[in-house]
Amino acid sequence: MRMSELSRLSGVSVTTIKYYLREGLLPAGRQLSATQAEYDGNHLRRLRLIRVLTGVRGLSVSATREALGALAEHAGDTHRLLGLTLGSIGPAGDAAEDSTERTEVDALVEELGWDVHGSAPARATLAETLGSLRDLGVPFDRNALVSYARLAERTAVLDLGQLDRIDDPLELAERALLLTVLLEPALMALRRMAQENESARRHGGGRR
Amino acid sequence: MRMSELSRLSGVSVTTIKYYLREGLLPAGRQLSATQAEYDGNHLRRLRLIRVLTGVRGLSVSATREALGALAEHAGDTHRLLGLTLGSIGPAGDAAEDSTERTEVDALVEELGWDVHGSAPARATLAETLGSLRDLGVPFDRNALVSYARLAERTAVLDLGQLDRIDDPLELAERALLLTVLLEPALMALRRMAQENESARRHGGGRR
Repeated sequence: MRMSELSRLSGVSVTTIKYYLREGLLPAGRQLSATQAEYDGNHLRRLRLIRVLTGVRGLSVSATREALGALAEHAGDTHRLLGLTLGSIGPAGDAAEDSTERTEVDALVEELGWDVHGSAPARATLAETLGSLRDLGVPFDRNALVSYARLAERTAVLDLGQLDRIDDPLELAERALLLTVLLEPALMALRRMAQENESARRHGGGRR
Repeated sequence: MRMSELSRLSGVSVTTIKYYLREGLLPAGRQLSATQAEYDGNHLRRLRLIRVLTGVRGLSVSATREALGALAEHAGDTHRLLGLTLGSIGPAGDAAEDSTERTEVDALVEELGWDVHGSAPARATLAETLGSLRDLGVPFDRNALVSYARLAERTAVLDLGQLDRIDDPLELAERALLLTVLLEPALMALRRMAQENESARRHGGGRR
């Protein structure tokens, strides 16, 4: 396909596509003439991935180039690939590495038997939230945390199950990112509706 | 307690407390003399709630005053109270009311048998996410959505279970808000760690 078609299908403007080509984020097309090149499905997938990395995840162009490079390097190692795309997502909490809550989170991960990298930002995020709840005087017991973690395990099985039949490494990385990041507001919306329903069930209310 | 003690315990500055008193967000203390007043636990709880509404939820002072008024009005009706605090949380999606995805969400809620208000912002949020996934060419089947919804039900049972022994309506509203809003990053962090673990389980990796 020509660049205009690539632009139409990806929703990325021709100007931006040219910028990505110059910056080396998108590989060059097959040159047809001095002014025309041919692009294919790989370009389209790569463009979508760039859009997710820069848009949804908010990475800079240079961070995106690095991420794409790392993905290409580990394309053959699915776990490493998913680790790179998923493990690093999200703002790291700024809880100190040696806070009480961080120790608590590390102990929880150990108890759950989870295989999670020691430097995963999610550990810090969780520790920070526990710290906030404590600061606000909200009791939050360990049993509840373990129960939430067990539900997270089942969510993750659903998440990964949707990546099962994808062989292309870039497509896998893209899908994993999209499902993780884009589904977040949906999962939170489901939780709120479920809370409303559960509140009706417990405290009356009746169908409207 | 005196205002300085109230400030210390709530973490809200004396200047801000005086501002809340002037704006009618916080009821006046019991006057001891022309310049001194006595505050109690109700003032402290109310201050924490104001802090959550303005800080975590980002409400304006006038919106907070309205929210507090509505809470006081329905203090005797737990379901209504939780509906007010939880049902209205979060940015409403801007998906059109009559979009394909909105119809899909409404049908899903019906199928699940959930008692959820027709105008709950979460319906629009969910519809918007489904629309984004579709725009990006990510297939997301209905069965997966139902499975996620069933997990949300179990999460909601955990959420509401933590509010069981709270009788004071303002405290209940505060706790419900805190658990819903503050727990979000924690739940997402648990999901990411669980994904990493599930990826290790499926694609090898071994404990580090």
